[in-house]
Amino acid sequence: MNKEHPLRPFLEPKSVALIGVSQKTGRGSFNILESLLKYGYGGEIYLVNPNAGDVLGLKAFKDVKALPRGIDLALIATRRNAVPEIVKRCADRDIRGVIIIAEGFSESDQEGKRLQRKINDVVSDRDIRVIGPNSIGVVNSFGAFSSSFLPLPKSSVPVALISQTGGFFEGFPGCPFGKGIDLGNMSDINFVDALTYFEKDEEIKIIAMYMETITDVPGFMAVCRRVLKSKPIIIIRGGRSELGRRASASHTGSLGGSDELFKAMFRQTGIIHVESVNDFGDIVKAFLYLPPFTGNRVAIITPTGGGGIIALDNVEDYGFCPASLSEESINTITPLFQPWANVGNPIDMLAAGMAHGYKYVYHRILESCLRDTGVDLVLAVCGTYTIKTIKEVAARYPDKPVAVWVTGSNRTSIEGKAEEYDFRPYYLSPDRALNALKAVREYHTLRGTGIKTTYGLS
Amino acid sequence: MNKEHPLRPFLEPKSVALIGVSQKTGRGSFNILESLLKYGYGGEIYLVNPNAGDVLGLKAFKDVKALPRGIDLALIATRRNAVPEIVKRCADRDIRGVIIIAEGFSESDQEGKRLQRKINDVVSDRDIRVIGPNSIGVVNSFGAFSSSFLPLPKSSVPVALISQTGGFFEGFPGCPFGKGIDLGNMSDINFVDALTYFEKDEEIKIIAMYMETITDVPGFMAVCRRVLKSKPIIIIRGGRSELGRRASASHTGSLGGSDELFKAMFRQTGIIHVESVNDFGDIVKAFLYLPPFTGNRVAIITPTGGGGIIALDNVEDYGFCPASLSEESINTITPLFQPWANVGNPIDMLAAGMAHGYKYVYHRILESCLRDTGVDLVLAVCGTYTIKTIKEVAARYPDKPVAVWVTGSNRTSIEGKAEEYDFRPYYLSPDRALNALKAVREYHTLRGTGIKTTYGLS
Repeated sequence: MNKEHPLRPFLEPKSVALIGVSQKTGRGSFNILESLLKYGYGGEIYLVNPNAGDVLGLKAFKDVKALPRGIDLALIATRRNAVPEIVKRCADRDIRGVIIIAEGFSESDQEGKRLQRKINDVVSDRDIRVIGPNSIGVVNSFGAFSSSFLPLPKSSVPVALISQTGGFFEGFPGCPFGKGIDLGNMSDINFVDALTYFEKDEEIKIIAMYMETITDVPGFMAVCRRVLKSKPIIIIRGGRSELGRRASASHTGSLGGSDELFKAMFRQTGIIHVESVNDFGDIVKAFLYLPPFTGNRVAIITPTGGGGIIALDNVEDYGFCPASLSEESINTITPLFQPWANVGNPIDMLAAGMAHGYKYVYHRILESCLRDTGVDLVLAVCGTYTIKTIKEVAARYPDKPVAVWVTGSNRTSIEGKAEEYDFRPYYLSPDRALNALKAVREYHTLRGTGIKTTYGLS
Repeated sequence: MNKEHPLRPFLEPKSVALIGVSQKTGRGSFNILESLLKYGYGGEIYLVNPNAGDVLGLKAFKDVKALPRGIDLALIATRRNAVPEIVKRCADRDIRGVIIIAEGFSESDQEGKRLQRKINDVVSDRDIRVIGPNSIGVVNSFGAFSSSFLPLPKSSVPVALISQTGGFFEGFPGCPFGKGIDLGNMSDINFVDALTYFEKDEEIKIIAMYMETITDVPGFMAVCRRVLKSKPIIIIRGGRSELGRRASASHTGSLGGSDELFKAMFRQTGIIHVESVNDFGDIVKAFLYLPPFTGNRVAIITPTGGGGIIALDNVEDYGFCPASLSEESINTITPLFQPWANVGNPIDMLAAGMAHGYKYVYHRILESCLRDTGVDLVLAVCGTYTIKTIKEVAARYPDKPVAVWVTGSNRTSIEGKAEEYDFRPYYLSPDRALNALKAVREYHTLRGTGIKTTYGLS
């Protein structure tokens, strides 16, 4: 018999008990039940609150003791003092997992540290697993389950987010994700558990992590090496600086090691390590929306000469080189231009576009690049006007990556157009596009070869 | 008598001749007259086209020779071969300045180089000044004048953009500007001319530049040193790489020197030099929307612990330090929290916000920081929900900078809310916010002291 993974009841709970659910509902109430129902959860729900008669039409049990046996998951959002006893009672009712949303444990004062030790004791003695304390828990867009008290976006993309903060769940780096775990103070379930779960999860292709510290370095490195053979892991670490490290102690009660040690570990394992919130989302997006590739010959198509030159500088900065266009490409493209124009790479298409129609010219040039065996990838510079054309042409050559730098002064309209056309591999600057492409290229170049990645090396 | 600056007729033309204006109008026609009228230009307009009877109700002259004498500015958008003779005829009619929009000169083939030399000869011999060739010209939101064939946004902000490409005019780095000059191939009017003009321009407080090369290094350094005493200069250079340098030759016909020389020049002069398109817009925005400051003690307010820790790492990365809150601040803030909470900096306000109301708590904490003499600036982390509160509170303390990192997965809604509330000093990641703040701090710290800025040092 296959032993079930300890995280199964957390990610795909068939039944959930909400302990300490509030009677307040509506805006500003942060009511977990309301959020769960809104998220479309279809499993059984049990409420526990000694004072509440019923909430949103569901009757509340007075005590955990009154619950049926064998519920998959309990969410605990009570005052901190009550938590250790509740965890014990959950174990008594054969509840498989609990998420402790309550705060005030190892991240706070002596009493909090004492209470967390009491929880740890229950976990050691009994057959129950814990996420948290100080966690917003789990979100699974595929399974329509969310333990968050905040309304979260639903996005069934094959990205798992493993985090030590809920902040990333609200998407602060612009990083889309389909399943997420906030490990909180990490008293029990940790990075290794989460990684082994997502390793086997066929709905997940990319793993993104926010880490402050880890407890099991050899275990972590071993599982990462295994996972990286099939799924890229992108990591951003909080507490790199001495100041950040100390603040982390009062955020999740964790004490990180020296930044150099973490960096060495990421490097040796092949994890893609970033230090900027922007890079994090940018790189995840590149893995998500672009095909794998290992070549480095870039064609740049641009309606602005200056933009093309800046992009070319960045091509060199990020270890790419400009593609030499084939004779066939040159022959196709040249008639679009004035006879005196220098047709090269970057392909500055403004004058040609004005003469023959922007979309027509962009289409012709992009298609030539995508058919050109001397071109490994395309950086397409454009305004919002051309996004749709690029999307349509690129879709016919799904094996060649086309990343877009969308220019224009109105960010709202750029993002809006990209969403309207459901076109995602776009960036707001060429360096950000090429930095993300670099990570994808390095991952696929080094995957399985045993050669160490150099990404994130400083 | 004050001699008028040679750029006055370009930026504030009382009368304009459009030479080579097309009869086509509407989308895709790139009709300069249409664009000029749409932009609200109120001066006299003369059209020249040997074939056109009239365009948009305005009668076209057959020849430049037929124009009245002393028109301020002519825009030339004809085929390249005609340009040298047209410039000469413009000089004959005492036209003060011409913008050569036409392409195909020193950036192209031998014939183009020859034609450009012929233009240069006219400029040397006669009393006429030239912007371009290969330029989209000039835009002045304050004076409602634009020579661009593309519709440009109007934005009366005190930022001047001096560029060697039109791409920046469409705002590709998210950099707002109120006046702009595209120098194009720079056959005559150059960076020094543009700088001396904006030096005295009271509507301009900040100067942003895109440069591929310069012709007069000592003159450039001298004018920059003078301008920098009252106005920051932010520069991004295209053609840093060997590849980019060569591409620049076929973009504006210019040959840049070694990147090291440019960097040394920027450093010695105190120019703020950036290499990323994102940084360019970010820094201009910080100068534009934040008060000057020299202190480095940052208070971080955050609804996400992890976000606060990442921001704290970035505080160290960019040479700031976390502020120690005064006893008064601590006394004001502490009652909002649970007794066991560690109230420090970063100020993690999530739990307090959930207990007492988000906006109320954010207001209280932000106001304490702004009144605290130990706090020099505030990095406020927030979702779109709190932008308005932050704007209102910050407005009451105009001398202390408040930069915001707006989090959330929906970029469109972030940008939309910031626009709706007309709140501008926001950033999409903490590193970008602090990088921009660093530039402002360094500029104001070093201004007038004669100490060299270290910004952009690698």
